[in-house]
Amino acid sequence: MSEPLFARVALIGLGLIGSSLCHAMRREGLAGHIAGHARSGRTRETAIGIGLVDSIHETAAEAVRDADLVVLCVPVGVCGVVAEEIAGALKPGAILTDVGSVKGAVVRDVAPHVPDGVHFVPGHPIAGTEQSGPESGFAELFDERWCILTPPPGADEEAVARLEAFWQRCGSSVERMTPEHHDLVLAIVSHVPHLIAYNIVGTASDLETVTQSEVIKFSAGGFRDFTRIAASDPTMWRDVFLLNRDAVLETLGRFSEDLAALQRAVRWGDGDTLFNLFTRTRAIRRGIIEAHQDAPAADFGRRHGKQEPGES
Amino acid sequence: MSEPLFARVALIGLGLIGSSLCHAMRREGLAGHIAGHARSGRTRETAIGIGLVDSIHETAAEAVRDADLVVLCVPVGVCGVVAEEIAGALKPGAILTDVGSVKGAVVRDVAPHVPDGVHFVPGHPIAGTEQSGPESGFAELFDERWCILTPPPGADEEAVARLEAFWQRCGSSVERMTPEHHDLVLAIVSHVPHLIAYNIVGTASDLETVTQSEVIKFSAGGFRDFTRIAASDPTMWRDVFLLNRDAVLETLGRFSEDLAALQRAVRWGDGDTLFNLFTRTRAIRRGIIEAHQDAPAADFGRRHGKQEPGES
Repeated sequence: MSEPLFARVALIGLGLIGSSLCHAMRREGLAGHIAGHARSGRTRETAIGIGLVDSIHETAAEAVRDADLVVLCVPVGVCGVVAEEIAGALKPGAILTDVGSVKGAVVRDVAPHVPDGVHFVPGHPIAGTEQSGPESGFAELFDERWCILTPPPGADEEAVARLEAFWQRCGSSVERMTPEHHDLVLAIVSHVPHLIAYNIVGTASDLETVTQSEVIKFSAGGFRDFTRIAASDPTMWRDVFLLNRDAVLETLGRFSEDLAALQRAVRWGDGDTLFNLFTRTRAIRRGIIEAHQDAPAADFGRRHGKQEPGES
Repeated sequence: MSEPLFARVALIGLGLIGSSLCHAMRREGLAGHIAGHARSGRTRETAIGIGLVDSIHETAAEAVRDADLVVLCVPVGVCGVVAEEIAGALKPGAILTDVGSVKGAVVRDVAPHVPDGVHFVPGHPIAGTEQSGPESGFAELFDERWCILTPPPGADEEAVARLEAFWQRCGSSVERMTPEHHDLVLAIVSHVPHLIAYNIVGTASDLETVTQSEVIKFSAGGFRDFTRIAASDPTMWRDVFLLNRDAVLETLGRFSEDLAALQRAVRWGDGDTLFNLFTRTRAIRRGIIEAHQDAPAADFGRRHGKQEPGES
């Protein structure tokens, strides 16, 4: 195996993304040593127990010492606090990045703490599942996905290129954009979809005329698709909405306007408006499948047929 | 193999549900003969060509002649017209059912045409994929799913029980309820989820600040989950919304109210409201998995990792 890309990598946070990065780095031989920190003692125990990391540290500052690459894999609401904590321990010349779903607020909260000589290059891999914790990660999570980097103006090009190479070796394509544009894009491809998924699951569980057991039984009618993303980590998602407020509100406003127009079409029996929209939306699905961003198989490739007990 | 449940079954409409029924009936030996009709000549050719049906008929009336079970598998908007067409050809003692996603309107449109001595028992299998057409069907579609029957007051119990046995042999559990209750339940587990999925895909494709190519590239952030059901058959879904108007409008009203409350929480930075909802919605997902109505595997069991060309 060739020289690792980074002699020492530190991961702060060992949830789905942090643990998947461990697996991907090992698959590709990207790190000479993986140092990890998690706030919870139980996560730290699990992480070292299952061999995710080479060393585990009780504080984030200890974990980042001597690291050439530091990746913040914590909810976006605590990135600033963590940055403050580790600032003094960062090695000159190190690359500091994150994986947060919001970039404007992370830049605002983290940048002031970054010492001179440390290269801060915010990032965001567009990949995930609804599961969380150190045991939910897997090496293939980033394969064929995109990772967005938002290097600040004047960022060190060598550092940005090295981080780009890192994500490419993890299986992803890399795109650069400004934090502001990232936050707009993510509002529509991720944040608002999550909010409306959470919302409809809430609406369903509050009905008086339809029982929760009926909602569950008959969920194969479409509802179950929404419950997957509505099972995502609550802390992470609360922070996303609080910190990408403006783009979320703007996108949500458009969604609600469009929905009011559809509602009107339903009320007035305007079948053409419905039919035209329903035809137009098929093209986007085709585009996503052609771009390898979803499985072409029907029903996400879900297994059909009776399953034996214990099968997943 | 034991005696088939029905000597002759006629299917009017050979899309996803009709063709899946053919496969399921063959797997279980449920029909002595399967007669089929589809409006389009191309569908009729395909259906006989791939051996879906034993005989194909140019008119629905010819197809139902001598059938012991007739299943309408057409969009709900045309059930009434088809019923009128076949009324004179129905065999006395036959069971007439349908698979439509709306029951009140189907009962209203079909019942007046049903001759005395024919048993009309409306039905609705809660199963599907986003694909359509005679080649999209498969035998396992109904396994471990639910089928709702809405027998009218005074329905012949033997006929209802036979239809129940039919669906059970196709792999499903059967529940009986009134058409009105069915339409309320389906509004929340299926119709409104489809409407908001269609809506957000429309909103995304109309943005000026984010390109369609960006929406596609970064759709793994959550958006792609919505595009699957927004790729469902436009005619079928237009009819559903036009014919289940009241329940859809009522459910949509609640959804929008709840969304406005969430929007307010985002605007005012009310993290507790967001966190509490996001925690509550996880329980419903667990219930759905425990009831075998979705895969327990992360991300619907979607394949991760690089796929070879030609793999699906």
